[in-house]
Amino acid sequence: MPQIRRVEPADWPILWRMLEPVFRAGETYAVARDISEAAAKTMWIDTPVETYLATDGDILGTFYIKTNHQGGGAHVCNCGYVTAPMAQGRGVASAMCTFSQTRARELGYRAMQFNMVLASNGGAIALWQKLGFDIVGTLPAAFDHPRLGMVDGHVMWKTL
Amino acid sequence: MPQIRRVEPADWPILWRMLEPVFRAGETYAVARDISEAAAKTMWIDTPVETYLATDGDILGTFYIKTNHQGGGAHVCNCGYVTAPMAQGRGVASAMCTFSQTRARELGYRAMQFNMVLASNGGAIALWQKLGFDIVGTLPAAFDHPRLGMVDGHVMWKTL
Repeated sequence: MPQIRRVEPADWPILWRMLEPVFRAGETYAVARDISEAAAKTMWIDTPVETYLATDGDILGTFYIKTNHQGGGAHVCNCGYVTAPMAQGRGVASAMCTFSQTRARELGYRAMQFNMVLASNGGAIALWQKLGFDIVGTLPAAFDHPRLGMVDGHVMWKTL
Repeated sequence: MPQIRRVEPADWPILWRMLEPVFRAGETYAVARDISEAAAKTMWIDTPVETYLATDGDILGTFYIKTNHQGGGAHVCNCGYVTAPMAQGRGVASAMCTFSQTRARELGYRAMQFNMVLASNGGAIALWQKLGFDIVGTLPAAFDHPRLGMVDGHVMWKTL
């Protein structure tokens, strides 16, 4: 099992090498494909409440926890996860999501919401469902996928 | 019917007098109840693509149009509307939403998404449905309402 620890400033270059191809591909995250490194750092490190990485010596993945809405919705968090290509299929995403749920509860959150899980991303949907998330909504043709064209986006939710 | 025009910098003080009690009440928008005037201006004026007001001489309401997601989701916009208390029941929200849909199409958006319409806000839900929106998802106990406690939030969607 990977170890999970808070991200430190010195980790950013290696995180960016993991995140950049994901954002440039534009196939999973609703992020501008030409996002600058500075904007990505703001999104992944500065805006979230906490950012983590999974490691076994090598960096295997990273995720953030942030508040999804403010005011009356501030008890709901949002997380985003990226697994390194060489670490796929080793339970890294599962470990990160499980950790994030525990940590979110500690931070006082009472639910976790994913705002757009692409219907084309069957592996992610199956994993989140296994980890207790439900599809609570579907946004029709919500995402313009570079290879697949318009695909639906699911809103997924777990009460913590 | 009210006239609808772009907001100008000089309009902000009167818009803030309309928005502040809405945000302070915390009963409709997922915005921090103690939001500062500067943060509210950023949210309502600076971040959106365009911000409008409805007027018949008096300011009757205001709304913004912004991009809801980036990247592959950038063809979906989000709008927020506030009607002045003295102008309730006069079709102002309907006029603003109708205008915003037309304008969103002109701006190239292909759908409009409301991220959290409170289940307690029956008037809004009925109006948005009348104007072509569907409830595509429901977030359970997503909003801590000051008077009603936990209420569900609906995700509403219209393909433009």
